[in-house]
This record gives sequence, structure tokens and C-alpha cells, in this order.
Amino acid sequence: MPVNFIPSLPEQLLPVKGVSLGITEAGIRKSGRKDLLVIALDDGANVAGIFTQNAFCAAPVAVAKEHLSNPDSRSSIRALAINTGNANAGTGKEGIAHARATCAELARLLSCASHQVLPFSTGVIMEPLPLEKIITGLPAAVADLKPDNWFAASQAIMTTDIVPKAVSKQISLDGMTVTVTGIAKGSGMIHPNMATMLSYIATDAALTQPLLEEIVRHAAAKSFNRITVDGDTSTNDAFILIGTGRAGNQAIVDKASPGFTALQDAVTEVAAWLAQAIVRDGEGATKFITIRIEGGRTPDECNQAAYAIARSPLVKTAFFASDPNLGRILAAIGYAGINGLDVNRLQLYLDDVLVAENGGRASGYREQDGQRVMKQSEITVRVVLDRGSASTTIWTCDLSYDYVKINADYRS
Amino acid sequence: MPVNFIPSLPEQLLPVKGVSLGITEAGIRKSGRKDLLVIALDDGANVAGIFTQNAFCAAPVAVAKEHLSNPDSRSSIRALAINTGNANAGTGKEGIAHARATCAELARLLSCASHQVLPFSTGVIMEPLPLEKIITGLPAAVADLKPDNWFAASQAIMTTDIVPKAVSKQISLDGMTVTVTGIAKGSGMIHPNMATMLSYIATDAALTQPLLEEIVRHAAAKSFNRITVDGDTSTNDAFILIGTGRAGNQAIVDKASPGFTALQDAVTEVAAWLAQAIVRDGEGATKFITIRIEGGRTPDECNQAAYAIARSPLVKTAFFASDPNLGRILAAIGYAGINGLDVNRLQLYLDDVLVAENGGRASGYREQDGQRVMKQSEITVRVVLDRGSASTTIWTCDLSYDYVKINADYRS
Repeated sequence: MPVNFIPSLPEQLLPVKGVSLGITEAGIRKSGRKDLLVIALDDGANVAGIFTQNAFCAAPVAVAKEHLSNPDSRSSIRALAINTGNANAGTGKEGIAHARATCAELARLLSCASHQVLPFSTGVIMEPLPLEKIITGLPAAVADLKPDNWFAASQAIMTTDIVPKAVSKQISLDGMTVTVTGIAKGSGMIHPNMATMLSYIATDAALTQPLLEEIVRHAAAKSFNRITVDGDTSTNDAFILIGTGRAGNQAIVDKASPGFTALQDAVTEVAAWLAQAIVRDGEGATKFITIRIEGGRTPDECNQAAYAIARSPLVKTAFFASDPNLGRILAAIGYAGINGLDVNRLQLYLDDVLVAENGGRASGYREQDGQRVMKQSEITVRVVLDRGSASTTIWTCDLSYDYVKINADYRS
Repeated sequence: MPVNFIPSLPEQLLPVKGVSLGITEAGIRKSGRKDLLVIALDDGANVAGIFTQNAFCAAPVAVAKEHLSNPDSRSSIRALAINTGNANAGTGKEGIAHARATCAELARLLSCASHQVLPFSTGVIMEPLPLEKIITGLPAAVADLKPDNWFAASQAIMTTDIVPKAVSKQISLDGMTVTVTGIAKGSGMIHPNMATMLSYIATDAALTQPLLEEIVRHAAAKSFNRITVDGDTSTNDAFILIGTGRAGNQAIVDKASPGFTALQDAVTEVAAWLAQAIVRDGEGATKFITIRIEGGRTPDECNQAAYAIARSPLVKTAFFASDPNLGRILAAIGYAGINGLDVNRLQLYLDDVLVAENGGRASGYREQDGQRVMKQSEITVRVVLDRGSASTTIWTCDLSYDYVKINADYRS
């Protein structure tokens, strides 16, 4: 089961003015599983996105980026079509044609243009997209469109996820209530630069397209780009932020305005909650690990150290075993590639327990103190490099039998 | 059990003139396990080594590098002391003192100087080395010294290894028989740049110290630096090549001589056999995977692609499951960071089966062909990048339940 994860209840998810969602079972995945989601936007919404950096990016990613790169369509997107069960990745020209056909059919149903639709897919790679099933399923998803469908939407985008991930937050701008609601999926193939991870966050706040793009980058950097489950990055990841402008606040046009900061914080909070939820629901995860690196010369070298620890199978299995075999963390820092690292200056903490300093075990460290922390389901690893003032924080999970089981069985 | 691994029999391991080996149970590891090895060299041997690049390098590595960096001692090394059960890594100044004390005691027993002894350790990190046990055990190891002890030596250096790894090869130089015999250990924490891996290869060929150093670098590049089990690199790795000069061949002094090439090939063959044996005995391995990248612009980018595939937990679990979920391989190539990669030019083969081309599934590919290859215990993944003439070959294994089990249980 996910680590200390309290899913939102359906009634805790707040509709966002100008957004409606429709779900259906198109038969792409196993029978009995909702696998097709349509998100429809009222006229006038802005949309901004961040996509996978994998060179083998999926066909829908290529098409969605193309539609968003057009300044006209970027501010006139009317719908998103999202299927699970098939990633439409590694599918060549036919895959592109399938993604375009999906857009065209949804555009026909909603009476808009194809370039006003964004396609998304997640699931198995290198299998042809079952286009007919999607075309056949779209009318039912459109018929289901309603504003309070966020919980069902969060269920419809699940693949190996155990729990649906969705959360809402409200703030006040100009005396008007502004809502931010988001959903996400993804529990394996998670790594910075967007691993098989899909997230859709919508707000009814009014703000300009450039500021929406600013917020999506900021929020991604503080959330989805700070998590790793297994180090793999996927072909299909996307994080989409929608601003419908229907809340009635005075449109935010200035980055220096208090409204901008408040909205950016709210979106970032929702994104970080969803990102952490993905790690808590990491494939086979039994522990939630926060890795904090301090005192680095640059943020880059802090990230190098943090991800070396977070990606090490030896470190991850030690967490799974609750074994304070903490030399494995030192070894990971040692091969992180930090130029001129003086291991004698470094300090390693497990929560509040000083484990290592002066190039070895700390004099006051007792195995039972390490054991106590390792038994927890939430653990913070803190490394002080003592060579600068940069820092970073990332989140990961342990590596368990079940990770292997889930990924060995995924297609069967 | 190891993948298609046929261990050498004790009688297949040939003594190397000028080398004797002694083993004992010093009580560092579990009771009943040999854990201390002494390799003694007759006067006049040359020794060359390659060591871990981990910034957290272990105390014995620091001391061995120091002793080998001295031109006088480099050609007068008389003994190597190797213990398992404790890595003496992350042990600060005390660890250095312990490594030096080990050298001093063995030097005393063999009537040589401390700087003529090289120390090595492997096992748990960040635990104090039980120096007393080593000091107490050394006389028994010295008393056991004999030339035909290679098989017992290969057993004494095992940690999580299932099988001992040792092999011999003979060639003829100047009508004289020259022997190359080597042992190795290491089955987890294996990655290029020497991961918890120890290997000792000795030859009785006569050659100069600079040529010995040339051969150790060449052999490492074609063997131990081409394997990965779990991507972790260790604090303690070392690959040592000994040339005793007792075979009676005319000393090799020229890199251009046929004798040099023949000897280099023989040493490289022994090293490659040992490196592949480490992967075949990879922790929990059920498959032996060769990854070949061709048509790259540079060897570096070929290695990037090869290691991205070899390190991907998703790819490795698919091999474990015999599941031709080959999109995972494409995804790994996609995030390998190859600049300007055109995925539409790339071809992916599984043994002789063309799986992907033109950015997607190959037109003639049938799932059952992929399935047939994936069921084998030896599989070659071949990727043609079609953008240059560089290539690389590396070896790895799959990721199984047992990898997690072994590493979660290691200390218990």
C-alpha cells in the first residue's frame, strides 16, 4: 500500500469554473477499467505545458507540443483527450496519424478545430494505438462531461497506480475565491524531466498566458522534477496547467503583484502534493524518503549527490530492509561525480541522527539510533557537503520485491 | 544460480611461477568462511593496479595506491593482504591506521618493508575493521602459502558471490610456456570504474613495469569497465596485475613486439572471462545480456546509450520476466542524453530479430519472435544508431526478486 498516503475524497475535490470532465471505458485497458478521459474547457482558457525530454517522445507529445507552440491555438485550447492502456510511443508515423485522428474526432464532437485539442496517452510502449476504440469511446466521454468529475478523472488516468491522486486548494484574490484542482498519475518510470507521469492542474484564476507559462515552469521545478522512483524517464510525460479566467478576479498581468505570488504558491503546493503522492504510491514503495543536500557549491552538484543516493539500488534496498547500512549512502555520494569533493568535511544525518563525519562513522553514532530511524515509514537523509551555500531537496522511495513483481508482470 | 557459468575446476587453475597463496579463516565473516588471503611474490615481481574512482575510496585503496605510486616499491612488492567481511571504507583516519597496521604485520612475518605490502578489503562499509582478528589470522595464512592455492584463494575473496571465479590461460613466448592465472570477486555494486570488485591476475612472463601498466589499463577497459549489475560503484575496487618474470621468456621491452600483443591478449582474455563471470553471478541474475551499440558518432555516446539500457530497472525487470516489452529499451535510449539523436534512423535488434526501425515497431516484427529470444538465458541487444562508426559492447544481467532479497538481507 502507498506510504502514508491519504487520498482526497470525491467531495473534497472542488470544481474549477470553465472546466468539465468526462470519462468512459473504451476497452483499451482491461475490461472494467475507465481508460478514456476528456477535459473540456470553456472558451477563453489559457493552457501551458511541460513535456518529457526523452528523445523517443511519444506521438501525442509531439502533437500536443505542436498545438501549444502555435500562439493562436495556445490561447484557444478547448479540450484534452487522455487515454491509458497504450502510450502511442515508438509507433512512428502511424502513431502521429493516430494522435491527429483522435484530436480531429474530439474536435468534431465539440465543434472546434483539431489544433484546439491536445492528445495524451500512457501505457505500454511500441504497440499500435487502438484508434477505433478511442474513436468509438469519445462520444460517451463527451456525454459524461460535468464540472464535478475530478475524482473519476483521477481514476481514469491510473495505470499501475494503486490510488487515485487528486487535490484541491482555494485562495482568495481580490475578494474572489480562486480554485486550483489537480490530478496526476504515475508510479513507475518516474524521474526528473517528467517520467511516465501525467498531471493536469486547472485554476479559474484570470492571468495572462506568459504568467501561466511562468507558473507551470516554477511549479514543475519544485514538484515533478524533484521526484524519482526508479530513475527511468518516460516517453509520454506531461504536466499541463489550465487557467480558465472565470473566477472573477482582476486578471493578473504583473509578475511582481501579490496575486501572482499567491497563485504561484497555490499551484506549486498542489503540484508538490501530487508529486509526493506519486512517490508515496511508487511501485512497491514501503517508505517515503526525503533527500536533502546542503552546503554544495552549486545546485547542480547538490542534485548530482541527491540523485546518486536516490537512484542507488543498494541504498534503496537497504531502506526496504530497514537496515542502517549507511555506508551505501556514502558510496553513492562518492561516485556522484562531484569535482574535488573532500569526504572528510561531509556530514551525513538520518533525520536528527548524525551518522558520519570526518570521513567515517560519527563518534557518537550508535547503530540502534540508525535502526530506529530506518524503521520509520518516512525518513529524511540530510547531507552537508560544507563547501558552499547551495542546497536541494528531492523525494524518492525504497526498492522492494513488489517493484520487481509489478514491473515483471506489467503486461501480463 | 549463475547464468550459464561453468566454474573452473581446481586442477584447471595453473600455478604462476613466483606466486604463492595462503588462506585462513580469521573470523571476520561468518564462521566457517575463509576470509583472509595472502598472496606472496618472489623477489623481482612487477605490480600494476587500477582502483576505484569513488571519492569515498576505502582506506586500503588509499594505502595501496600510495605504495604503488612509489617507483621503488612498485617493483618490489612482496605481498598482498586481502580480507572479506569488512570493507574498511568510510572509516576515517582509524581506517588508514588499520590498513597500515595490516601491512606492517604481514611485512614483519615475511621479512620485508611495510611499503612492499598492498592491503585490500571488501565487505560492509563504515564498520571499523576488526584489526585484531586480521593480525591474529595472518600467521595461519602465511603458513598456508603454496603455489597451487588459486582455487582456495578465489573462494576466500567471495562475499555475496555464489561461485568462485578463477581461470587460467597459457601461451608460448620464445618457446617458453607463459601462464596467466586470475581470480575475481564481486556480484553486486558492479559498474564501470570498478565496483565492489576485486581481481588479481598474475603472469610469470617477463616484461617491464611500464608495459605491465599498459596491459592492466587495456585489459580493464575491455573487461571490468564494461560490466554493470546495478549501476553502483564501490569504494574498494581494485584490479591488480602481477608480472613475476619467472617464465624464462626474453623480457618484453617493446610495445610493438609480437610477444607484447600475445601477452596483452592473454591477460585481456582472462580479465574478460572474469568480468563476464561476475555478471553471470550478478546478484539474483537469471539472464546474461550483451548490449552492443553501433553506428554512434563517438565511443562516449555509444556508452551512454549502452549504460542507459543496462541500468534501467524497467528494462532489467522485463528481461527477468522474459517479456518483450521492448519499448522500454527505446525509452532508455531516448533519455540517454545523446545530442541530436534522430530516433527515426535507429534500428533495434534482439539477437537476430529486427524489432524497431523508422521510429517504431519494425514492419516484419512479430511478438512471438521477440518472445522466443527473451526466453533465452543469453540475449544480445543490438542498437544501430546510424550516425557514425563508433561502437561499444557491455555486459549486464536482469533484475530479479532475488536481487532485492540479497541486498535487503546482506547484513543480517
